Amino acid sequence: MSNHPAGTSDLSRRGFLKASGTALGAASLASLTLATQAADAWPPNGRNLIARGDVILFQGDSITDAGRSRAPAKATAPNNQPGLGNGYAWLAAAELLVARPNDALKIFNRGISGHKVFQLAERWQADCLDLKPNLLSILIGVNDIWHSLDPKLGYKGTVEVYERDLQALLERTRKALPKVKLVICEPFVLRCGAVNDRWFPEFDRYRAASKRVAKSQHTTFVPFQTMFDEAIKYAPPEHWAADGVHPSPAGASLMAYFWLKAVTGK
Amino acid sequence: MSNHPAGTSDLSRRGFLKASGTALGAASLASLTLATQAADAWPPNGRNLIARGDVILFQGDSITDAGRSRAPAKATAPNNQPGLGNGYAWLAAAELLVARPNDALKIFNRGISGHKVFQLAERWQADCLDLKPNLLSILIGVNDIWHSLDPKLGYKGTVEVYERDLQALLERTRKALPKVKLVICEPFVLRCGAVNDRWFPEFDRYRAASKRVAKSQHTTFVPFQTMFDEAIKYAPPEHWAADGVHPSPAGASLMAYFWLKAVTGK
Repeated sequence: MSNHPAGTSDLSRRGFLKASGTALGAASLASLTLATQAADAWPPNGRNLIARGDVILFQGDSITDAGRSRAPAKATAPNNQPGLGNGYAWLAAAELLVARPNDALKIFNRGISGHKVFQLAERWQADCLDLKPNLLSILIGVNDIWHSLDPKLGYKGTVEVYERDLQALLERTRKALPKVKLVICEPFVLRCGAVNDRWFPEFDRYRAASKRVAKSQHTTFVPFQTMFDEAIKYAPPEHWAADGVHPSPAGASLMAYFWLKAVTGK
Repeated sequence: MSNHPAGTSDLSRRGFLKASGTALGAASLASLTLATQAADAWPPNGRNLIARGDVILFQGDSITDAGRSRAPAKATAPNNQPGLGNGYAWLAAAELLVARPNDALKIFNRGISGHKVFQLAERWQADCLDLKPNLLSILIGVNDIWHSLDPKLGYKGTVEVYERDLQALLERTRKALPKVKLVICEPFVLRCGAVNDRWFPEFDRYRAASKRVAKSQHTTFVPFQTMFDEAIKYAPPEHWAADGVHPSPAGASLMAYFWLKAVTGK
């Protein structure tokens, strides 16, 4: 089942996983333990997921993309600012790289603006599995609802499609990369700009679906909506994302900080 | 000497301080212990300096100011985004407030663009002591050298003046607020924009002076220059501060992250 050498705790791990009755495959006991602590905790309070030499991949839509360069040399090299864009992924990457200069981390961004879950699936081999990430972080969902709200776009996806596709994507990832550490980021919106009452309560169902998938796959979960719901007590929604969807530098900085809290265990 | 009630460890603390032979006054043993761990450590690795109900004050020049509102209602209210500006102080404040919503923190910014140490001293009663901060963070020094490099400005300050004035400012602060937790931020520049060879090696003497004062006053020290020296391995100097002095959103985000690492003990 695994193409990795068996660890010393392999037997007890298999026993535990079998007993748990999940379809978790060869995910490590450590990440499982973390997940049960972290999936509902706020702020997350687990252990550090990032190990020396890890390949870290950010995946998602425009919020992750954030204007990253597609020039081949820049997009293929890790740890490269133009290739990482100007959003939360770059800020989190910069903070990790500067804090841990000797840890040989390799950080990539493969977010693409406008994408929904099924579009991640279409490019998953080249843009995820071939990169063999040790840690994979996915933020997806806002277009899955947004594009369904605009009749001109003709997108017929529903929250059920979103949940089914995301679940399938994670199962496929675990099958190809049994030891991958998974991070699911909660889709979020701010109530301003393009985000009006038409989004609700349907949007809350997408958020709940992402959390359900994170739980069933025992991933770390980064509750960005909870974070922004708190943030608007200190500055108006527009300060964090002028159009309600795409974070400002302040919004992106807040996301990077909480992503790191969730992933490095505070 | 202190207007605070004596703590239970007051006697042993006084004995320790007397034995240490410093002019430290009634600073707490805890912050002293932290300081000796943190002043040279990179990354800093102490304990959390921030307690429930703390008043936190950011002081400094334009880097701290970062366009904060001077409108009375906004400038006097804590935790207010316009009053906190758009720089590292606001980003660090937002991250603290959102992470610790129930801790009743009160965060102020009183940085003023262009200021040097002697100008902080001129407004210290109203802009620091009257606010009674529990934690005071100071980032000052870039104008102390910059304004001396431009003959048109006629500023005659030297690194000796900078060090003497900064030392005196901290002694005055400890005398008025014996329990204040002090954070000194290292002045920094990026080698681009307005920052050319004329700044060196003199600028390194200002950095060394700030570190010496932090050490002699047993404060926490945030080594921003060390941080930016590492950051330019991942993106060019202009990415972090286009003019070499004033941080971009990415530079400010990095500063907020490392400030929090230093002050909350990672």
